[in-house]
Amino acid sequence: MESTATATEPIRFETHPARYVHWKLEIEAPVARLVMDVQEDRPLRPGYPLKTNSYDLGVDIELADALQRLRFEHPEVRVLVLASGKDRIFCSGANIYMLGSSSHAFKVNFCKYTNETRLYLEDASQSSGLKSIAAVSGACAGGGYELALACDEILLVDDSSSAVSLPEVPLLAVLPGTGGLTRVVDKRKVRRDLADVFSSLGEGVKGRRAVQWKLVDEAVSLTKFAGRVKERAQALAAAAPRRSGPGVALPALAGRYSEEGLEHRHVSLKIDHGQRVATLTVKAPQPGEPGDAAAMRERGAELWSLRAFRELDDVLLDLRFNRPEIGVVVLKTEGDPLQVLAADAALFAAAPQDWFASEVLHNMKRVLKRLDLTARSLLAVIDQGSCFVGSLMELALAADRSYMLAVDGGPRVGFSDLSLGALPMSNGLSRLQTRFLGQPEKAQPPVGEDWDGEAALEAGYVTFAPDDIDWEDEVRLAVEERASLSPDALTGMEANLRFAGPETMETKVFGRLSAWQNWIFQRPNAVGAQGALTLYGKPERPRFNWSRT
Amino acid sequence: MESTATATEPIRFETHPARYVHWKLEIEAPVARLVMDVQEDRPLRPGYPLKTNSYDLGVDIELADALQRLRFEHPEVRVLVLASGKDRIFCSGANIYMLGSSSHAFKVNFCKYTNETRLYLEDASQSSGLKSIAAVSGACAGGGYELALACDEILLVDDSSSAVSLPEVPLLAVLPGTGGLTRVVDKRKVRRDLADVFSSLGEGVKGRRAVQWKLVDEAVSLTKFAGRVKERAQALAAAAPRRSGPGVALPALAGRYSEEGLEHRHVSLKIDHGQRVATLTVKAPQPGEPGDAAAMRERGAELWSLRAFRELDDVLLDLRFNRPEIGVVVLKTEGDPLQVLAADAALFAAAPQDWFASEVLHNMKRVLKRLDLTARSLLAVIDQGSCFVGSLMELALAADRSYMLAVDGGPRVGFSDLSLGALPMSNGLSRLQTRFLGQPEKAQPPVGEDWDGEAALEAGYVTFAPDDIDWEDEVRLAVEERASLSPDALTGMEANLRFAGPETMETKVFGRLSAWQNWIFQRPNAVGAQGALTLYGKPERPRFNWSRT
Repeated sequence: MESTATATEPIRFETHPARYVHWKLEIEAPVARLVMDVQEDRPLRPGYPLKTNSYDLGVDIELADALQRLRFEHPEVRVLVLASGKDRIFCSGANIYMLGSSSHAFKVNFCKYTNETRLYLEDASQSSGLKSIAAVSGACAGGGYELALACDEILLVDDSSSAVSLPEVPLLAVLPGTGGLTRVVDKRKVRRDLADVFSSLGEGVKGRRAVQWKLVDEAVSLTKFAGRVKERAQALAAAAPRRSGPGVALPALAGRYSEEGLEHRHVSLKIDHGQRVATLTVKAPQPGEPGDAAAMRERGAELWSLRAFRELDDVLLDLRFNRPEIGVVVLKTEGDPLQVLAADAALFAAAPQDWFASEVLHNMKRVLKRLDLTARSLLAVIDQGSCFVGSLMELALAADRSYMLAVDGGPRVGFSDLSLGALPMSNGLSRLQTRFLGQPEKAQPPVGEDWDGEAALEAGYVTFAPDDIDWEDEVRLAVEERASLSPDALTGMEANLRFAGPETMETKVFGRLSAWQNWIFQRPNAVGAQGALTLYGKPERPRFNWSRT
Repeated sequence: MESTATATEPIRFETHPARYVHWKLEIEAPVARLVMDVQEDRPLRPGYPLKTNSYDLGVDIELADALQRLRFEHPEVRVLVLASGKDRIFCSGANIYMLGSSSHAFKVNFCKYTNETRLYLEDASQSSGLKSIAAVSGACAGGGYELALACDEILLVDDSSSAVSLPEVPLLAVLPGTGGLTRVVDKRKVRRDLADVFSSLGEGVKGRRAVQWKLVDEAVSLTKFAGRVKERAQALAAAAPRRSGPGVALPALAGRYSEEGLEHRHVSLKIDHGQRVATLTVKAPQPGEPGDAAAMRERGAELWSLRAFRELDDVLLDLRFNRPEIGVVVLKTEGDPLQVLAADAALFAAAPQDWFASEVLHNMKRVLKRLDLTARSLLAVIDQGSCFVGSLMELALAADRSYMLAVDGGPRVGFSDLSLGALPMSNGLSRLQTRFLGQPEKAQPPVGEDWDGEAALEAGYVTFAPDDIDWEDEVRLAVEERASLSPDALTGMEANLRFAGPETMETKVFGRLSAWQNWIFQRPNAVGAQGALTLYGKPERPRFNWSRT
C-alpha cells in the first residue's frame, strides 16, 4: 500500500538564504555562485541521510528560492555559476532512499516540483538574461546532471573522477525524472543512439568524449578549471542585458495554515474535507495600485500583481503536497474588476522597459503554468461579485470548465493586454489560443470590453452559463460529480486535454517523460519487493519480470 | 500477478475477407461499405462474449486487413463508409471483459495495435486519397467513437438513441485508449472545456449539440440518413484522385512459425530463449526485380519492396504479441546492396505516377513506423555480407544503436532516394533528420556513395565500429548488457529517445496519451480488486483511493 508519509507533517515552501541548510549563495556582481553543499544529517523527513550531495525536496525548495531571489533581489547579477561544495562530487541526484521510501504520489509530485525548478532556471536565462553555468567537478550523476542540463553551459573538469551520467535505467530501473532524456536529445541535440548508450551506462562519460557527444560544452583540466569558469562567466555577463538596481526584497508571506485551509492576504483556500473539495479565492487589488514603473518599484513585494501570484503559488504547492485528498478545486475571484484591469495595464506598459515589472510578469506566467500543471480538477465559478478579467480571467481559462451566472446585472468577464500572449502556457500558446485552436481569430478578443453570462457563453469564453434558477444546483452537481470520479483517470484525462496544440520541450518533459516515469514508478521491476529501486544499496540483486510491455 | 493468457496460443495476423467473422466488406465502386457486425460468440480467446458490437483484437485484425486490401486490391474504391450491422448500436468500443481479464502487457499491446490501425485509416486518406465516412446510427461509445474520429467525416443519426461518447473515465476509471482525447482536441479541435465535459459524461452527446461541439460533422434524421451518407460519399469520391485498375491481390505470406522463430521468404526471426534475444534478418532482393511501374504491377505482391515489408510487419506483430520475453532484437541484413538500391530507385521513380508503387512505398513507411514503435531494444549489427543501404539502412537508423564491423573489404552502408524523406517517422521527420536534429545538413547525405565502418562512424551513421579483434566481444557484451536491464525502464527510455524533435498528433497518441493510459492501467482504482475496470458489469460499486497523484 502507499504510505502517507507526506500527510504527517505539512511541507512549507518559504525559506530565505539566511536559513539555507544545503546551499550557499555567494554574490560578487555580476556573478553569483550557488554552491551545493548538502548537509547529510538534515533531510526533510527522517530516515535517509543525504549522502554525496544527493537532494530531497528540502534541498530543492532552497534552490527554487535562490533562483527567485536572484531575479528579484539581485538585478546586479547577470550570471549564475552552479558549483559543488564537496570534493570529487558535484551532485549525485535525487536521494534514492528518499525515493524508495516515498509514496507514489509523493514521488510524482517531487519530480514535478524539481522539473518546475529546472524550468525556472531556463526561464531566468530566456526571460531575464540571467545566464547559468554548471561548473562540474567530480561525479555528476542523474538529477545532478539534469540540473547541469538546465544551465546554459556545462563545463566539466577533465580528470579521472569527473563524469556526467544518467545511471537511472541501469542502476535503479527507473527513468531520469527531471527532464534528462528530453534535454539530452531535444535541448543539447545529442544523437539519439549516443544518448541511448549514455543513458544505459552506469558509470557515465568523461572528458573529451563527453564533449564529442555534446553532453558538456567543454572539458578543462583541473588546474585551468577555475580560470576558465571565470572567463566564461565574464563573457556571458558582458553579453547579458544590464538591470539597474536596487533589488526588490521578497519578505515572507506569512500565511495562516490550518487543517481547514490557508489564508493569505489576497488568496485563500478553504477545505471541505467531506466533499474533498477546496475553494481557492483570489481577491482583486484595492484601489491605489501603482500606475508606473517607478511607483511599482517603490511598492516592491507588496505590489498586488506580485504578491497575489506569490500567494497563489504557495497555495498550489500546499494543495499538491499537503492536501492529496482534495480532488476538485473551485476557482473563485472577488473584488472590483476595474482594479485588476488597471493593475494589468500598468504592468503591461511597464514590463518592456523595466526589469522589475518584467520579473513580476514572468512570475505571474510561471505561477499560472504551475496551475495548469496541478493535477486536480479545476472548476471556475464566476458568480456575483467576482472579477474574472485580465490576469484573473486566466484562472477561468486554465480551469477544466467554467460556470458563469447569467442574470441581469450579474458578473462580467473580460480581457486585458496580458490575455493576448504575455502569459503563455507550457505549450507556447496563450490560454485563449489553446482554447480556440480551431478558430485562431477568437484568440484575440477586444481588450476593455466585457461580457455577461449569456454573451460569454455565446462567445465561447465560459463552458456553461445557468440562470439563477439553475445556478446552485448545476454548480453543486458538477462539483459532486467530478469529485466522485477516479482521481487517476482524471489526472490522465486532464493531462491530455489541457495541452492541446503544439508540444514543446517543456510539455514533453511533463507529458511524455513524466507519464512514462509515473508508469515505471509503479512497476514491480522498480518498486516491487525485488525491484531495483527497492533494493538499491542492499546486497541483494534485483529480480526482474522479463516480459516486455 | 499478470496472467500469461497471451502466451498460451499464438495470435496470427493474416486473414482474408472470405474468412472475416465480424465485418462485411461490400464494394460498389467508387464506394466501399465496411459493416461491423461482431459475432458475440466468436471472441479471439474464450471467456468474454463480444456483446453490442464490442471488439477484441480479432475484430481489429480483420479491420486492419480490410484497410490494407482496399488500398492494394481495390483501386476503384475512393470512399469507405464505416457502418454497423446492428440495430441501435454502432459500436460500443473495446470489450471490457476482455480488457479486464487481460495481462497488463496485452492491454498495452492491444491498444498500440488498434491505434496503428486507426492511423492506417488516416494514412489511407492522406496518402491514397481513400476518404472515409463514419455513418453512425445508434450508440457510438468509447473505442467506437475513436474509430469514427479516425474517419474524415462523422455523420450521426439525429434521434433519441444515437449518441457519441467517451465514457471510459466515468464508467471504467481508465482513459479512452485509441487516441480519443488527442483527436477530440487536436484533430477535431473541440474546445478543451467542452472536451472535458464530453469525456466525463457517461451518456455522451446527441444530435445538434454534438454538431455544435464539433464532435460530429452532421446530425441527420433517420429518414434522410442513408441518402445523406450516399450524397457525402459521392461528393468525396468526386474529389478523390482516380486510380486505374486492376488491383493487386495480396496472397497469404504463409510463414513457418515455431517456438524457435519465424521463417518468411525474405525475413526471418530466430529466437535465443536463454538470452531473451531474437535475431531478425532481412534479405536483399535477388537480381531481376522490376525496373518500372508496369513491370512492378505485373510482379504484384511478389515485388520484394512489398513482400519483404509485409513479412517484416508480420514478424514485428509476432514479436509483440507472441514473444513477450524477448528483450533485445538484433537487426541484420543479408545480400547484395546493389539489389536493394536498384529496388529503391525503381520504387522512388515510379511512386509519384503510379498508385501501386505509391502504395508499396506507403506500406514500407507504415511498417518502419511499426518498428519504431516496437517496445524492444533494437540493435543493428552491420557485419560481413550485410546490405544496410537505402530502405534497409532505415533498420539501422530505427535501431537504438548500431554496431558496424570496420575492416578492409568489410561491410558498407549507404543511402537511396528513399532515405531523404520518403519514409518519415511518426514525428514527421526522416530517420536521418531525427538523428541529426542539431546538424540538419547531415540529414541529406549524397545518394549512391557508400561508407565503410570507419567512415560511417566518422560521419555519424553508426554508433560503434569495432575492428575484427574487438568485434565479437563488443557486440556480444552489448547484447548481454542490454538484455540484463529492466524491461520497463528500457521501454520508457526508448519511447523518449527515439522520438526527438517535433511532436505530432501521432506521437502524442503514442507518447503522451498511451503513457498515461499505461500508468492508469496499473492503478488500483482501475485494475485493483475494487477498481472500476475490474468491477464493470458487477453489482458492486468500485471503491477509489481518493489521493490525487
